[in-house]
Amino acid sequence: MDRLRKRSAGQDAVTSALTNLTECIAPQLAAVDRLFHEELVGDLPCVNVLVKHVSRFRGKMLRPCLVLLSGKACGANLGAISTDPHVVIATVVEMVHMATLVHDDVLDEAELRRKGATINHLRGNEAAVLLGDYLISHSYHLCSSLDSQFASRAIGRTTNRVCEGELLQIDNRNNLDLTEETYLEIITRKTASLCATCCALGARYAGASEETVKKLETYGLSLGTAFQIQDDILDIIGDGNVVGKTLGIDIEKGKMTLPMIHFLQTAPREHRTLLRSLMSSADADRSERIRNLILPSDSIAYARDRAKQLVARARQAIADLPETDARQVLDVMAEFVITRPM
Amino acid sequence: MDRLRKRSAGQDAVTSALTNLTECIAPQLAAVDRLFHEELVGDLPCVNVLVKHVSRFRGKMLRPCLVLLSGKACGANLGAISTDPHVVIATVVEMVHMATLVHDDVLDEAELRRKGATINHLRGNEAAVLLGDYLISHSYHLCSSLDSQFASRAIGRTTNRVCEGELLQIDNRNNLDLTEETYLEIITRKTASLCATCCALGARYAGASEETVKKLETYGLSLGTAFQIQDDILDIIGDGNVVGKTLGIDIEKGKMTLPMIHFLQTAPREHRTLLRSLMSSADADRSERIRNLILPSDSIAYARDRAKQLVARARQAIADLPETDARQVLDVMAEFVITRPM
Repeated sequence: MDRLRKRSAGQDAVTSALTNLTECIAPQLAAVDRLFHEELVGDLPCVNVLVKHVSRFRGKMLRPCLVLLSGKACGANLGAISTDPHVVIATVVEMVHMATLVHDDVLDEAELRRKGATINHLRGNEAAVLLGDYLISHSYHLCSSLDSQFASRAIGRTTNRVCEGELLQIDNRNNLDLTEETYLEIITRKTASLCATCCALGARYAGASEETVKKLETYGLSLGTAFQIQDDILDIIGDGNVVGKTLGIDIEKGKMTLPMIHFLQTAPREHRTLLRSLMSSADADRSERIRNLILPSDSIAYARDRAKQLVARARQAIADLPETDARQVLDVMAEFVITRPM
Repeated sequence: MDRLRKRSAGQDAVTSALTNLTECIAPQLAAVDRLFHEELVGDLPCVNVLVKHVSRFRGKMLRPCLVLLSGKACGANLGAISTDPHVVIATVVEMVHMATLVHDDVLDEAELRRKGATINHLRGNEAAVLLGDYLISHSYHLCSSLDSQFASRAIGRTTNRVCEGELLQIDNRNNLDLTEETYLEIITRKTASLCATCCALGARYAGASEETVKKLETYGLSLGTAFQIQDDILDIIGDGNVVGKTLGIDIEKGKMTLPMIHFLQTAPREHRTLLRSLMSSADADRSERIRNLILPSDSIAYARDRAKQLVARARQAIADLPETDARQVLDVMAEFVITRPM
């Protein structure tokens, strides 16, 4: 479990940039932090140890920020206590996100184990499956403490979609003919849908009109899609020391991402053939060679442009909200998801 | 995924015995079946294929039966449609149970993979983690379709406890000093708590008094604990052809169960030493040798007695409910969980 998420100087810099950006919701974020721990701590020391591990690899709190800022941008007077609906929902989405990270890491550990595993690794793996389940369970449990079923329904609907996105992704593993359309379908479900729900619920619990809720939902959906495209770009071109996690994982896992999809459609024939053969090879340096093949092409720029268009759409969606600090931060945050180095 | 749960003649016989027993709720069980599929089928063929796989290893429907029979025993006039609260809750608990099975099987597949795995196995494993998540997500989503948060809260509280029980269990893996008290704590959380919640919710949604709800909860808790003790006994002494799944798994996984705990406290010193050394050995035939060591002792009988006491407590708890078919079936079912051969 110790290695599930390594933190780097790059991560710390981004976290600190976000902290400055989100000063206007600092008391609420602190309340989220408290509630996260209150909800998860139980009477079993062996469970509390794992929960402590998980807390260590919490980072940007992007999703709680989306809930709280959307609420504030729609006029909510946010409390900083554990019964404030925005604080509850922000904590719920953070738990959902942590659960997906932990289960993603199970799959990473499985990789590691393939390369020569010990029983200890196996025990860690089992604990990680169960810890992810524990986080999911607590997220729904916490959500059910709200007065109405409204948020529970939205969260349930969203996690259904997140799972579908992940399943569609592994179904398309090593599919070199993956289309941009299906790629977008995957990342919309697995990443963007939760961001959209964060924003929509933030607005809804601020008492916003149906029309305004839709605007925030569009903002979250576009931002979340751009976020994932940037993640996928960084997996190819990022600096491992800044990003703070192993890169080239998409290639290792046979995940086709936007730069690769574009490359396979537009690069000279011999380059395309080379990428295809590298994707199906087992060479240790294939990530490096794929990176060197794609970098000089315009496929990274193409993916960046798509992300930029999505950010523009996100900003457009909230352009006519009342001019508040929160709306301003949402605007900056949309830019931030594609300029961040990690 | 194909091998997740093998069905055997023994399983079919038990399923058919249960079918006769639960004839009075047959229309409701059929409605559960329909709702299970309606809730899980989506727009992605790759997801539907996995859901179809899962449906194949559904079996006894014990937990839905507990919800429906408890409701009926408390005077509910059960509908056989997908919006009947009892049908909804019965479907929810079946999904929760299936999710735990699927994630248990992930851990089994991991074992298999340790003994020489292929990439295909690995893909199956990842799909199983995600499919379990998909089932959990849909169970909460379906539960949130009920009018009030009441069931969602109870289910969330219960799944928290189920995860705790599983985590406590792996924390005590290979702990040869596990006490009966901690063993009971583990199985109460991981197995009995869900059965208790099934019965309590069945009663509650029938409009039963607080006192009656408590009685049904006690019934479910005792029955669930007895059920798990019987499972653990069968893992040692069962006939693999009847039980239809690999036995000796508890020993393989270093899980101490009641017969072994009793044996280590009461058997002659040299027998205890032998069991301890077998438990920590890696011999291929250690399951067999442990079975041969424990069988002639009175430790199986001790575990059986504890299960019998629990069944008596379960039956006692519902003894003064009005004399109905449903109460009668609950009574027989309590006996059934410790006499079943699988």
